[in-house]
Amino acid sequence: MRNSLIAMAFVLLGGGGGDPRRGGALVLAHDGDDDNLTQEAATVPEDGSVTSSKLQIHVPKTLTKPGGYDHREALFGIPPYGGSLAQAMYYAENDACDFNSIDVHAGHPIRAMDESGTMLAWQSPYILMVDRGGCTFVQKVRNAQRIGAAGVIIADDSCLCSAAESCVSDPGEACEEREPIMADDGSGSDISIPSFLMFKQDADRVKAEVMANHPVRIEMTWSLPNPDDRVEYELWTTPTDAISEDFLRDFKEAAIALGSRAYFTPQMYIYDGMLSGCVGEDGENQCYNLCTNDGRYCSTDPDNDLDRGVSGADVVAESLRRMCIWGHYGESDGVGVPWWDYVNEFMFRCNTEEFFSNKKCVSDAMVHAKVDAGVIDQCMSESGGLEADSVNSLLEGQLQAKDKSGVVILPAMYVNRVSIRGSLELPVVFKAICAGFSAGTTPTVCSTCASCPNQKECIANSYCGSKKMQESVSTTNMVYAMMGLVAFFCCFSYVQHRRYQSQMQAQVKNIIAEYMPLESDQNQNQSTAVSEEDGEFT
Amino acid sequence: MRNSLIAMAFVLLGGGGGDPRRGGALVLAHDGDDDNLTQEAATVPEDGSVTSSKLQIHVPKTLTKPGGYDHREALFGIPPYGGSLAQAMYYAENDACDFNSIDVHAGHPIRAMDESGTMLAWQSPYILMVDRGGCTFVQKVRNAQRIGAAGVIIADDSCLCSAAESCVSDPGEACEEREPIMADDGSGSDISIPSFLMFKQDADRVKAEVMANHPVRIEMTWSLPNPDDRVEYELWTTPTDAISEDFLRDFKEAAIALGSRAYFTPQMYIYDGMLSGCVGEDGENQCYNLCTNDGRYCSTDPDNDLDRGVSGADVVAESLRRMCIWGHYGESDGVGVPWWDYVNEFMFRCNTEEFFSNKKCVSDAMVHAKVDAGVIDQCMSESGGLEADSVNSLLEGQLQAKDKSGVVILPAMYVNRVSIRGSLELPVVFKAICAGFSAGTTPTVCSTCASCPNQKECIANSYCGSKKMQESVSTTNMVYAMMGLVAFFCCFSYVQHRRYQSQMQAQVKNIIAEYMPLESDQNQNQSTAVSEEDGEFT
Amino acid sequence: MRNSLIAMAFVLLGGGGGDPRRGGALVLAHDGDDDNLTQEAATVPEDGSVTSSKLQIHVPKTLTKPGGYDHREALFGIPPYGGSLAQAMYYAENDACDFNSIDVHAGHPIRAMDESGTMLAWQSPYILMVDRGGCTFVQKVRNAQRIGAAGVIIADDSCLCSAAESCVSDPGEACEEREPIMADDGSGSDISIPSFLMFKQDADRVKAEVMANHPVRIEMTWSLPNPDDRVEYELWTTPTDAISEDFLRDFKEAAIALGSRAYFTPQMYIYDGMLSGCVGEDGENQCYNLCTNDGRYCSTDPDNDLDRGVSGADVVAESLRRMCIWGHYGESDGVGVPWWDYVNEFMFRCNTEEFFSNKKCVSDAMVHAKVDAGVIDQCMSESGGLEADSVNSLLEGQLQAKDKSGVVILPAMYVNRVSIRGSLELPVVFKAICAGFSAGTTPTVCSTCASCPNQKECIANSYCGSKKMQESVSTTNMVYAMMGLVAFFCCFSYVQHRRYQSQMQAQVKNIIAEYMPLESDQNQNQSTAVSEEDGEFT
Repeated sequence: MRNSLIAMAFVLLGGGGGDPRRGGALVLAHDGDDDNLTQEAATVPEDGSVTSSKLQIHVPKTLTKPGGYDHREALFGIPPYGGSLAQAMYYAENDACDFNSIDVHAGHPIRAMDESGTMLAWQSPYILMVDRGGCTFVQKVRNAQRIGAAGVIIADDSCLCSAAESCVSDPGEACEEREPIMADDGSGSDISIPSFLMFKQDADRVKAEVMANHPVRIEMTWSLPNPDDRVEYELWTTPTDAISEDFLRDFKEAAIALGSRAYFTPQMYIYDGMLSGCVGEDGENQCYNLCTNDGRYCSTDPDNDLDRGVSGADVVAESLRRMCIWGHYGESDGVGVPWWDYVNEFMFRCNTEEFFSNKKCVSDAMVHAKVDAGVIDQCMSESGGLEADSVNSLLEGQLQAKDKSGVVILPAMYVNRVSIRGSLELPVVFKAICAGFSAGTTPTVCSTCASCPNQKECIANSYCGSKKMQESVSTTNMVYAMMGLVAFFCCFSYVQHRRYQSQMQAQVKNIIAEYMPLESDQNQNQSTAVSEEDGEFT
Repeated sequence: MRNSLIAMAFVLLGGGGGDPRRGGALVLAHDGDDDNLTQEAATVPEDGSVTSSKLQIHVPKTLTKPGGYDHREALFGIPPYGGSLAQAMYYAENDACDFNSIDVHAGHPIRAMDESGTMLAWQSPYILMVDRGGCTFVQKVRNAQRIGAAGVIIADDSCLCSAAESCVSDPGEACEEREPIMADDGSGSDISIPSFLMFKQDADRVKAEVMANHPVRIEMTWSLPNPDDRVEYELWTTPTDAISEDFLRDFKEAAIALGSRAYFTPQMYIYDGMLSGCVGEDGENQCYNLCTNDGRYCSTDPDNDLDRGVSGADVVAESLRRMCIWGHYGESDGVGVPWWDYVNEFMFRCNTEEFFSNKKCVSDAMVHAKVDAGVIDQCMSESGGLEADSVNSLLEGQLQAKDKSGVVILPAMYVNRVSIRGSLELPVVFKAICAGFSAGTTPTVCSTCASCPNQKECIANSYCGSKKMQESVSTTNMVYAMMGLVAFFCCFSYVQHRRYQSQMQAQVKNIIAEYMPLESDQNQNQSTAVSEEDGEFT
Repeated sequence: MRNSLIAMAFVLLGGGGGDPRRGGALVLAHDGDDDNLTQEAATVPEDGSVTSSKLQIHVPKTLTKPGGYDHREALFGIPPYGGSLAQAMYYAENDACDFNSIDVHAGHPIRAMDESGTMLAWQSPYILMVDRGGCTFVQKVRNAQRIGAAGVIIADDSCLCSAAESCVSDPGEACEEREPIMADDGSGSDISIPSFLMFKQDADRVKAEVMANHPVRIEMTWSLPNPDDRVEYELWTTPTDAISEDFLRDFKEAAIALGSRAYFTPQMYIYDGMLSGCVGEDGENQCYNLCTNDGRYCSTDPDNDLDRGVSGADVVAESLRRMCIWGHYGESDGVGVPWWDYVNEFMFRCNTEEFFSNKKCVSDAMVHAKVDAGVIDQCMSESGGLEADSVNSLLEGQLQAKDKSGVVILPAMYVNRVSIRGSLELPVVFKAICAGFSAGTTPTVCSTCASCPNQKECIANSYCGSKKMQESVSTTNMVYAMMGLVAFFCCFSYVQHRRYQSQMQAQVKNIIAEYMPLESDQNQNQSTAVSEEDGEFT
């Protein structure tokens, strides 16, 4: 259970839809087990990164490869809509870490010289290949864009250990267990060109070709359709993040309406106290009650007063609780009604200084959300608890997920691995999810409500527009109703008519009988009978 | 509850063209009176800048401060949606004016050394503290983003005069009357990370902590809610700006519909002739008739021909007139129907070369807009007039407002201090205003019309959709009407039936009487009686 | 025909509307004939670039020019909505190719010195004039933005040959046939300030003024309204581009609905094999079957396997075919129903490895789309064919159009020369087209459907909303119907009443006759007659 929970937290988000993105976050599938990770690295990544973008070489012929080359897509800079870029490639022979060292008149393939004996500059538009290392990926790609590149290929400099035979490491370089994630360092939102990381064994062949001055033409394609008909979405937040509260309040209905066609993963943002220097050089604990597990897992103190109110450690505890609740109630279906209920009950009951870490309040919230407190407590302690000076497996996994996602600003929402640009509101998120289905697989709730002015009401009611509109009468129905009415009255009149006639005849006979009492005694008796009968009919 | 306000209030500008923004502009409220300005500077700014964002220190404990630190938020770069960024901080020990002088391997707190004896680089993601001075704020923040910072804190280097006791000025530095505005220099739209200015007394303590190599963890939060239920919006334009004309024509109805729930401020864009060198070094007037008050206040000549047509001075005069009209008719309620009327009358009547500065035409426009020309003329001359070689208090105030707003491109629209990105059209602006109300305070006109396809019509009619739609009949009403009709006819038939019966009886008797006139006198009398009785029923 | 076809391919896109753009593409009108080009260059460009933006000098008076100066607008960086920027100008005396060589303390006009004897920096906000040459336009403008400019004027350094008299060339510089296009080099999406190229004869006068230390105030205005009531839009794609398929499938109806109010141009993206080194230095053909005409015109191999499946040459052939079909069936009306039909038939029938270049399949598609295969084949061969080692006039023209447009990422959509930011979907494109009409000329289909939630259905049905909604009954009609019904029944009842009465009288007489058969023979006869008559009525 614990393992599968972690695997869940690192849920694999499938290929990208056609949605706005700026630095989509790739979250790798793994279960926190290092051995296992190495094995995964040897195969095509299970996270679908290969299917969400494509790296192909068209020229020279010897480098073409049907299906394209394995690669990593950057989590920043990729233009927000599907597209492709096919251009000639230059190799900068530079790691592009120092902008001033990039020389547009150098590199390969060599070009003709101008009058002054300088080689002509790279001819725009071009894709630039730069070496890995020396600085962040963001730095390299930013410098490449500044120098004028339309796209960037980063040539890896160390082999994957799993590629043993096919890849020759540089002298002195050890092999890597897995390819790095091209994460955003937090500053990459000013980059607007695509960049891919090419693995060493492939990059070496491309470099050899370029160094021999043969032209190379590369195509980068991004946002290929999601191969399946399920959309994955995830939210990075903390239990005290105010900006995501409305979303948490509103979106439950939508999650239910999407049902098995979408898979939600709530991600709790905590930070690593070890890395943040919570244990100072002088051994002093710098983070006080911000962290659990002796400074390992920390969260921000919402009231910013260490001596009172909610502490960071309280927030970490609540985060772990929600992770456990999701693991037990949401992981299986990706909807997790009890999780939404619990979160809303918690916000309603306990989201104050006084009650935030109050056991009674939390337990009340669980009861109201129909969450089994015993199971959750067990999950929390089995994962490693919060008090011991040891690792908590769930929280540790969450730290790793955070690093891989590159999330810096909270809250952050991803749909099919693509970051949602826009405020965290039901319409924005719902529209993005609906746009993530592959053609022909859009669920009904999407076609009904995605373009409805009032999406929230539409999702709840299963139709768009006001009640009144929905129940309005069409002209056809109106005409039928009118015709029905006319028919009814015609029949009614006819029946009445027949009744009148028979009644009339009876009465006339009565009257005549009255006027002619002399005729016979029988007649008089008959007349009385008719009168009585008549009374019954009028 | 406070929390729940957050997401909604400053929320972003939904759908269509109104979303992404880059660089909100802070426009200060002031009345153009210098003394008054100074007094304002001593207190918390009235513009709400302190409440719109938050600067908190979480680590070390000694620097935590409930409610956070006073600061200035940059008017550029802040991401367009509410969010927060909590990361470790490094102090660059640099003013970041020269990109090449920023060294990621320097600064504090110190890190471990790598094999070559170089200190490790700042670990991403991080917030970078840089010194104030030497270049524009935009320059510093751009350089910090390029070096890889996820957020920037600018440490002020001069004290506020009002902070006398608590702040120690650097030797030789005079105190400042007010903290500077972190305005955009016109080039800042390429920046996408948040930056705050921290006041000297606070920054000095943070620096001391960092220089002692203690880790510091800072949180920057932006887009906190507007504390009230009123949305402020303002438009920067000129009387000759063609792009804003449609907006001025369309938006009056919306302003009325929003009523006291929104507050409009029209801002006239003029420029400072003194700074622009209208008085050349040789004393020659370089600006001719572009300016009023001997070259003090200038505007662009719309026809770009100084010798004929409308002059810049005419535009300044019309700007001042509109400022006076707003002051007298709009300032009190923030709606200013006569102002909208005047502007529209002016556009209709006088917006041609011939009539632009024609007194008769302007006066006609005032009459039609029910504006008292006498009051306006008095306002214009009392503020300092346009002819004298002296300051005009209203225009001077407008120049200062312009500097503070950082407006560079015209027209510019701000809603709750946030610049609207998108074309200046009624739907875009109206949607942005409606999104600016805190949760639960959205006025009816917003809930009715903000997501209506045809907003203009909706605002005018107070309902969305066509007349026909609005009046359509619901099924329930249809059923009631049908049932009513049936009931009516049943009653009608019953009454008719009774009438027929009695009529019939009378008539039958009549007929019989005709056939048997001889029978007896009594019978005849009886027949008459029945006839009379019958009369009662018909 | 051939000439007009080419002219068409280079259709002139008119002035810009108020739409999202990031680097609009200017496509010049020319017919691929160099002599002709030179003549065009001598006049105001026919492409409307002059009317889509404006460059005016307000100060000094001697440089003002009603209507503004001729210029080129950059295809990158211009803010996406209409606006204007009027600021003081500094001349950097630098080509801005090397960021480090730009000195904010240098340039003209000269400013005062500070204490240290350095000239004050350029005062923000300002427009920066830089010299042409040395690097790409994108490079210059990026550096200018980084240094803090709010706008950039690039001073041309070579004369137009056509300007002979009025322009003095620099020594050793030959004149240019035409002003260069300020195209994006593929990296310019990070630029967000406007930039114009000023022609040499004008720029020299401005420089002279600035060098004499006179202040210069410049206004840059962009997105002036399209002077006509027709919107031009164009799509850059290839026959194998998967991302544009949905658009091609959906948009035909919209193109028909827009009719003569919009003009579509499909542009096929091919690349120049000569420039791409398809003929290597050693004479070896590097591009194999990617190219036609012995390596002249190339396209990407969709399956990336040169030995099987669809080849690049096949794609070029299909591109040429579509160009011919558009030329014959779409050029005249800008709608081109047969073109849309052919493309859809092709996608339906032939878009597989097996059938892509299958003559039978293509011919079937033509038949179903009612395209005359003979005419198209003739067009393809007359333009130069695909086999010969010679130029194909249509493809050559397309290469030139590509260079001028600056298209780098596929697919790319332009509306009124402005690039559409957003995914290539019917609603996005349709909305952009509708926003491109000048005020008052918006066609009905736009006002009906542009803000309709389901635009596709709306365009097909000519009304927004569901069928049911459209046919719903208004209260007024309901009331009329009810009143009609009541009136009908009243009349009906009245008529019935009268019939009953007469029938009754007749019957009564009958009955009486029955009761009094003795009275007279005549009576009996009458009674029989009445009985028969009565039968007719019941």
